[in-house]
Amino acid sequence: MLSFGNDYSYGACPEILDRLARTNDTAFPGYGSDAACEDAKRRIREACETPDADVWFLVGGTQTNQTVIDTMLAPYEGVVTVDSGHPNVHEAGAIESTGHKVITLPHHAGKLDAAELDDYCATFYADDNHEHMVFPGLVYISHPTEYGTIYGKAELEVIAETAHRHGMPLFVDGARLGYGLTAAGTDVTLPDLARIADVFYIGGTKVGALFGEAVVFTKGNTPKHFLTQIKQHGALLAKGWLLGLQFGTLFTDDLYLRIAANANRQADRIREALRERGYTLTFEAPTNQVFVTLDHPTIERLQAHVRMGFMEKADNEHTVMRLCTSWATTDEQVDQLIALL
Amino acid sequence: MLSFGNDYSYGACPEILDRLARTNDTAFPGYGSDAACEDAKRRIREACETPDADVWFLVGGTQTNQTVIDTMLAPYEGVVTVDSGHPNVHEAGAIESTGHKVITLPHHAGKLDAAELDDYCATFYADDNHEHMVFPGLVYISHPTEYGTIYGKAELEVIAETAHRHGMPLFVDGARLGYGLTAAGTDVTLPDLARIADVFYIGGTKVGALFGEAVVFTKGNTPKHFLTQIKQHGALLAKGWLLGLQFGTLFTDDLYLRIAANANRQADRIREALRERGYTLTFEAPTNQVFVTLDHPTIERLQAHVRMGFMEKADNEHTVMRLCTSWATTDEQVDQLIALL
Amino acid sequence: MLSFGNDYSYGACPEILDRLARTNDTAFPGYGSDAACEDAKRRIREACETPDADVWFLVGGTQTNQTVIDTMLAPYEGVVTVDSGHPNVHEAGAIESTGHKVITLPHHAGKLDAAELDDYCATFYADDNHEHMVFPGLVYISHPTEYGTIYGKAELEVIAETAHRHGMPLFVDGARLGYGLTAAGTDVTLPDLARIADVFYIGGTKVGALFGEAVVFTKGNTPKHFLTQIKQHGALLAKGWLLGLQFGTLFTDDLYLRIAANANRQADRIREALRERGYTLTFEAPTNQVFVTLDHPTIERLQAHVRMGFMEKADNEHTVMRLCTSWATTDEQVDQLIALL
Amino acid sequence: MLSFGNDYSYGACPEILDRLARTNDTAFPGYGSDAACEDAKRRIREACETPDADVWFLVGGTQTNQTVIDTMLAPYEGVVTVDSGHPNVHEAGAIESTGHKVITLPHHAGKLDAAELDDYCATFYADDNHEHMVFPGLVYISHPTEYGTIYGKAELEVIAETAHRHGMPLFVDGARLGYGLTAAGTDVTLPDLARIADVFYIGGTKVGALFGEAVVFTKGNTPKHFLTQIKQHGALLAKGWLLGLQFGTLFTDDLYLRIAANANRQADRIREALRERGYTLTFEAPTNQVFVTLDHPTIERLQAHVRMGFMEKADNEHTVMRLCTSWATTDEQVDQLIALL
Repeated sequence: MLSFGNDYSYGACPEILDRLARTNDTAFPGYGSDAACEDAKRRIREACETPDADVWFLVGGTQTNQTVIDTMLAPYEGVVTVDSGHPNVHEAGAIESTGHKVITLPHHAGKLDAAELDDYCATFYADDNHEHMVFPGLVYISHPTEYGTIYGKAELEVIAETAHRHGMPLFVDGARLGYGLTAAGTDVTLPDLARIADVFYIGGTKVGALFGEAVVFTKGNTPKHFLTQIKQHGALLAKGWLLGLQFGTLFTDDLYLRIAANANRQADRIREALRERGYTLTFEAPTNQVFVTLDHPTIERLQAHVRMGFMEKADNEHTVMRLCTSWATTDEQVDQLIALL
Repeated sequence: MLSFGNDYSYGACPEILDRLARTNDTAFPGYGSDAACEDAKRRIREACETPDADVWFLVGGTQTNQTVIDTMLAPYEGVVTVDSGHPNVHEAGAIESTGHKVITLPHHAGKLDAAELDDYCATFYADDNHEHMVFPGLVYISHPTEYGTIYGKAELEVIAETAHRHGMPLFVDGARLGYGLTAAGTDVTLPDLARIADVFYIGGTKVGALFGEAVVFTKGNTPKHFLTQIKQHGALLAKGWLLGLQFGTLFTDDLYLRIAANANRQADRIREALRERGYTLTFEAPTNQVFVTLDHPTIERLQAHVRMGFMEKADNEHTVMRLCTSWATTDEQVDQLIALL
Repeated sequence: MLSFGNDYSYGACPEILDRLARTNDTAFPGYGSDAACEDAKRRIREACETPDADVWFLVGGTQTNQTVIDTMLAPYEGVVTVDSGHPNVHEAGAIESTGHKVITLPHHAGKLDAAELDDYCATFYADDNHEHMVFPGLVYISHPTEYGTIYGKAELEVIAETAHRHGMPLFVDGARLGYGLTAAGTDVTLPDLARIADVFYIGGTKVGALFGEAVVFTKGNTPKHFLTQIKQHGALLAKGWLLGLQFGTLFTDDLYLRIAANANRQADRIREALRERGYTLTFEAPTNQVFVTLDHPTIERLQAHVRMGFMEKADNEHTVMRLCTSWATTDEQVDQLIALL
Repeated sequence: MLSFGNDYSYGACPEILDRLARTNDTAFPGYGSDAACEDAKRRIREACETPDADVWFLVGGTQTNQTVIDTMLAPYEGVVTVDSGHPNVHEAGAIESTGHKVITLPHHAGKLDAAELDDYCATFYADDNHEHMVFPGLVYISHPTEYGTIYGKAELEVIAETAHRHGMPLFVDGARLGYGLTAAGTDVTLPDLARIADVFYIGGTKVGALFGEAVVFTKGNTPKHFLTQIKQHGALLAKGWLLGLQFGTLFTDDLYLRIAANANRQADRIREALRERGYTLTFEAPTNQVFVTLDHPTIERLQAHVRMGFMEKADNEHTVMRLCTSWATTDEQVDQLIALL
């Protein structure tokens, strides 16, 4: 069975496993107060070109979205996202469970439109009744988006500017950030992102680590007593150094971007093959997620050999399916997939 | 200044004030465990023709929506409503603050479409990832809706049937129920509603009382330890008999429906005058809320003499305004308003 | 049946009912944005001698505690109270339901000891693990306490000073404030309280009103967007002017203190009679609640004629019972009670 | 520096690291729906002798307590624990953040007394006002306790029986369960625990794993849609098979109990040395935590060479310190520690 169902199907890149093995007999203090975490934070600050950024490590993506969004919002505020945003759809109500509304705008191939954001806020504050409504308090976007698309630098800047004009910080979910930063044609670098976003995270779970997300607060804006708040959310890992070791490794010798680039290269090969064979790509996206609208006999035929992801029904005869590559995808696996198309 | 801004601008109908004055020196036990509440509950059960219904009294509408929705839902469930629904827009996130998502469907002149509800649920359960999503757990509608429109009996029945088929109870917000039950042409009676809905409330605040909403559980489905849960929501009135006295009065000699009918009659007069003068009614609605799309000079002219409600911008030159009548509106007030149109 | 079970058994003082009747045909804007509320706020600020205080009206005591405590605390903070405090015992978990821990210290006849508070905080911050613990964020006391006792001015000052030294505001629950301010021997005036506390409320429900509590923020410390937060807690009364009318009346011609003094005078008569007859007063308290430890035959005998409150088991043969007077208690009622003792 | 500060200072036992390395190139489905998890669950059910138990894997202890307690409680219920219980003290309010009160009873060397539990519940239900109070809904104990003490089988049975009699399930926090099951003189086996408790967990983080806690529901009492609820708590690990691999390894060839026994053996050696040298053991406890009351010069002297844990101030000259062994502690480390005493 070929595994293209998602980008979290394999363990960790070998450098990480080696590092864990080498440090297994070293005693570390708990809860992230260790040298491995300090080292990883320093490397991330350097890669971001933000010497004053505040870096924290959490375990998973939904946990990170829940913890960051809840602690960045006032009780009377909600988070603004596109309707296809992960916190709105696939986090089982994790945001609402902390008391906050998820305010949605329509997505455009997964992306938020700054003008629509501006209009939403302008209309909100012009409404005589807005004190009876949930205040827009934080803008959430993901980069890449749920549909694998990415923002350009200018787009990110205008979204950030719009958010700030309405008193909101910009939070960028980077669960797949490596794949965005290494996509063909992107003009967004990690320092760009660190400069533009108020808080973002660098995904490890989907990009080479066993688990882990590195949250970066870039503007001296870490929520007060953040360690306590992480603990309260059940999100403080006892053996925090495991996160430090993994991110320290990923940010040594550009490992993070190198392994991410592999996923995009493999996805590009799949996209090219799909186009050549006349398949319908649902979205034009340059990252590791390939969305393709397939008729049901084709789905059935492929699923005999390939694990794919269900995305959504297109019409009665077609379904949007997702083929995911990752840092772990090999040339051979893609060759086999292409042979089946 | 003529007061047509809302339907909660005046105190209470005189019968209620008289009753409060007459019983002011009587000692009652607290928290609703009194004879006045028992009497009011009996009268409501009789009016509903549901001898086994369980009736509770709360103070206000948002409080009632919050308490009922939160206590009827499991933690992994959200409430399904149209996007224009009060809990989605004008309750400052009261539902989310209790941990639950508000799941929205498009409104049709304020109303929920049963086929869209069915489709939403069918799609939800067909989605391979639905265990990562918020389960639809309760259907919320209001009758009349936010736009003054009403459901027909057959519409309510199919919504209830659809909700039940997908494992959800139907909750009807009746903050303005009197105005719905006495609207011209309605085929929905209070016993109909009590038969169709799993839980609903009879609004007092907007229909003759100083305050108060009577929640009716019709199917032996009161949430466990509901008194404790009301208390936990900060919603248990110490002098609960004040609610019993008011609802007991409203459900004596048909007072509730009689005073509600007045509001509709006055609104009908306004609608007729608006039509005659060529104004654009935004919605065709038979209850006490009159929505009219006005150009800005007209708004300015009228607002010198009439308190109206802002609803929403229609376009750059027009705004949707609301004229509200109530149980307290007099012929004379409407005459004066019409003279200004 | 004589009614001494609690202090919320009768309607409102006649001046309030008269005022409601006289204004019943006046149209008011909703949600407390009316002239009656403005007038009441002005009167309360004057009575408090705090021209800059910010006054808000809510409906009930638990609701007020829940709303004030939740909105004054950061998410990582809890409220510090004595173990007998109302929010710890008799609010069905209303505080915890908003996400905050209730941190308890032992009570001394219902009162908080400033030295114990100081010690708790010092120990907390000295604990290496305190970042894994709930931060003490607000000090809650009631005046009078649950046991009818009152603080002296110097006691309040040292509690406030202690709270402030540890970064906490002081919140005084004044559900029965009138009875505290008019107790024999008290040296605490309303201006004293307004000067010492950071936020407190003036109870209406138990002191002359149909319902209502007036929250006073004395230090420019109103939680941001407080109206929205009240709404989110389901605590915003549509006909807010009903609260303004009641408090405006209570703060005209010293009505509030005058009617409160009656309750204390009647309670003093009961206490004197109990002492004369050799009963055991459980607490020495100078306000409207009389606690008396009774043997079970006496309880049975009295309960045939008098409604009393159960407080707690004393031992196998005795129970602590509560006799409550109020603004509404008459000489005749107390005469009859005394005759039964 | 000798590391006796806690029992989560080292990585994982070598068998686990080997297994992760061997399976690193295997594709697994996400979120715990994999063969490694199935295998581990089967092994745990066998070790528990509960063929029908339902087993789930979470990442950390606070997260597990938060998720289990929140999902087992009704909204009007709180969890009953001793005051020294981890959820009451060291989880930063994680339980309250989900809306539930932590109800405390006094601890006895960390343990709950069944008679006090019984008395608390009897008093609660006998209180006329208990509907205004938080219902006791679940009994939480830890085995071993925070002070390293353990329950006997008969003690556990009477606690369970008491809990059940008052309508509560018994939840046993087994973050250090291995150390309890292998303590000298214990009569509690894993099958005993599985038979007595309604839900418990087997700690991996502190007993040989990188991370992970295995929750066991023994009575067909798994909360509905538990996967969704785990997700909502931010506690669902994407690469769930990492948990399955670790627990599968720990429950192969009795590895879990074998490595746990080492910690107790090393702790026994430390206790013996302390006793011989005349130190004061604060608690008589047979597991891996050694509590010793030290004067401050001794603490200073030892801390130059040994990492210890601060527990609490004993008096002005003495502090209770904790020395922790673990599965990873070596004879040599203990020899060096003893030489320093």
